[in-house]
Amino acid sequence: MFEPVYFDHNATTPLDSRVLAAMLPYLENRFGNASSRHEYGRAARRAVDEAREQVAAAVGAHPTEVTFTSGGSETNNLFLRGAAAVLKSGSIAVSAVEHPCVMKTAEDLSRAGWKLNKLQVDSTGRVAPATLAAALAADTGRSPALVSVMLANNESGVVQDISKLAEVARAKRAWMHTDAVQALGKIEVDFRALGVNAMTISAHKVYGPKGAAALICDKRIEIRPQIAGGGQEHGLRAGTENVAAIVGFGAACELATADLATQGARLAGLRDRVDAGLVALGATLFGASAVRVANTTFFAFPGIDGETLVGKLDRAGFAVASGAACSSGSTDPSPVLLAMGQDPEVARGAVRVSLGHANTAAQVEAFLTTLVRVVEELKQMTAIAV
Amino acid sequence: MFEPVYFDHNATTPLDSRVLAAMLPYLENRFGNASSRHEYGRAARRAVDEAREQVAAAVGAHPTEVTFTSGGSETNNLFLRGAAAVLKSGSIAVSAVEHPCVMKTAEDLSRAGWKLNKLQVDSTGRVAPATLAAALAADTGRSPALVSVMLANNESGVVQDISKLAEVARAKRAWMHTDAVQALGKIEVDFRALGVNAMTISAHKVYGPKGAAALICDKRIEIRPQIAGGGQEHGLRAGTENVAAIVGFGAACELATADLATQGARLAGLRDRVDAGLVALGATLFGASAVRVANTTFFAFPGIDGETLVGKLDRAGFAVASGAACSSGSTDPSPVLLAMGQDPEVARGAVRVSLGHANTAAQVEAFLTTLVRVVEELKQMTAIAV
Repeated sequence: MFEPVYFDHNATTPLDSRVLAAMLPYLENRFGNASSRHEYGRAARRAVDEAREQVAAAVGAHPTEVTFTSGGSETNNLFLRGAAAVLKSGSIAVSAVEHPCVMKTAEDLSRAGWKLNKLQVDSTGRVAPATLAAALAADTGRSPALVSVMLANNESGVVQDISKLAEVARAKRAWMHTDAVQALGKIEVDFRALGVNAMTISAHKVYGPKGAAALICDKRIEIRPQIAGGGQEHGLRAGTENVAAIVGFGAACELATADLATQGARLAGLRDRVDAGLVALGATLFGASAVRVANTTFFAFPGIDGETLVGKLDRAGFAVASGAACSSGSTDPSPVLLAMGQDPEVARGAVRVSLGHANTAAQVEAFLTTLVRVVEELKQMTAIAV
Repeated sequence: MFEPVYFDHNATTPLDSRVLAAMLPYLENRFGNASSRHEYGRAARRAVDEAREQVAAAVGAHPTEVTFTSGGSETNNLFLRGAAAVLKSGSIAVSAVEHPCVMKTAEDLSRAGWKLNKLQVDSTGRVAPATLAAALAADTGRSPALVSVMLANNESGVVQDISKLAEVARAKRAWMHTDAVQALGKIEVDFRALGVNAMTISAHKVYGPKGAAALICDKRIEIRPQIAGGGQEHGLRAGTENVAAIVGFGAACELATADLATQGARLAGLRDRVDAGLVALGATLFGASAVRVANTTFFAFPGIDGETLVGKLDRAGFAVASGAACSSGSTDPSPVLLAMGQDPEVARGAVRVSLGHANTAAQVEAFLTTLVRVVEELKQMTAIAV
């Protein structure tokens, strides 16, 4: 049985039981292909349509602006590659703290002849509007530039001022995208208020299933599909719709909006308690002076390796992360922290705690108690090793 | 409640209850991100690894040759675009009866400067080895040519002689891919025996979930990922693994192998009965003189529109298709039938029945009885209209 306390909600969230209940009929007798012209197909199509309305409503978008995909990485690739295919050449600006699926895609475009601007960030990981303005001012291309800056960082939880950045981008006719995967369900995410042209959100970060995500994209800009085939998703993404996952995504989006009010303040309280405990133990907190999503804290203990601490905590019954799950295989220090000006040695100590709906104050206290012991043990080991 | 008899298994299949049972723990407490380095993550990783072995075993491949994706269309796009990105330029040969996700991708490559050979087919929809040999002989490129010919056609069920075609491709150093999505679970599919370099299979066509598929690709050829980001799937496909769907795919593959022995002959018997009934009613069968997968029959009644017949049958309680689900929105006649030399007027009458595990002889008899009535009604309507 799974006993450990789960403190890694930025990696993925458990499926809300209400979401699973909404999905189950589509894993059972409502199994039709949404493109089929019979009752099974129409039932699937209605479910996809309804989910599209739920997803759109959660972010203040219009259902026709929603393109369903299989995940956040696919979605970020779809926007950047799809826009680049239409614009053919030009410049792309991304923050230095983007998720690898944005950064590597931008680097691929750079190798294909695009001018890549990696936007420098301050010590909390935020891009100043002036930094973006300077990058776009230097851009002499005739096509609109591409800009992608994430709304909330996956490692630090730090929230960027996307509406300000979008204003700068609009003034320069740039196409502005934001990866809002780590923001949805944690802060209010309003597509119009953000003022971006396109936005990525994903189901499995908001207590929905893995396998569904969406690109929200306004109609003023055109992108090219990256998966060609049947005419699904208005021709923007071919492939049989993953109906059950899409239904779950819709249900999760509806719940995210409702839960934000009740969970937001509660999680902020728990996170503040974690932060206080960490500081009392001598930890450095990353990005804590900036606005952060309520559930996340990112920290390091001097001289203690992050991977080692994560392993110790795992054995003690607490599931936390040493950074982004997708790069957990890597032993390099977090590029996010390096971009924030942290020393590589400090960055190697990074550990992320990301709380979620089922977490309790008792779990937080138990965690802090365990942490005292574990950190003491590791300090002694380090002392012996030295 | 869903009452209609489902005869559209080539569009999608119901999830086998044993597959759903295998998936459920991963939709409940085993919800971890497979890249996470804690117990939740390791449990997810083990599940993905086991599914990879199950999928590989079902097609006689090695687990390291399996790359999980979100669906068949993504997979076909991944291989063709990914290989083209490595080879940079050259020629691509695809059969004239490919699924749109292969055909449109090949046409995209053609617009990007690749030489596209649409391989002509005979009246049953099969590519003659000599046709491929001629196309490759005319190819003067220095890079290996790309070849993609499907194993079983989604509309007609006709099986191509892929091992012969692969022999021709090998002799010319071409990279040979086959879309085996419609073949798996219906005929034996052995990656080595087929002799191809790459192959696409998909879960939801074999009583598995929507949202999981795989590219089987040998190590002699290199392709470039089409979704960049985290290092998942050996760097070939970024994005958080859809663990539950992948687990379902593994379970479905294992069952497909086991069920093929019991279901193959049974479905062939039912399909032969459908065929006999159709012929007795004056229908034309497409591709029936060739080797077909056991569950599929593709036919038309002279002077009766396919869409109209599908609608009538739907209202009478039978879910059948007028062709590929992904192009059900289109009113153009099937390109597959046109490539087979059928008259557009005849092709407009096309209807597909694709049987599945839960179908019974009683359902087939009820269908034929209904068909007699429905066809008679439509003939009278046509007579009045004339």
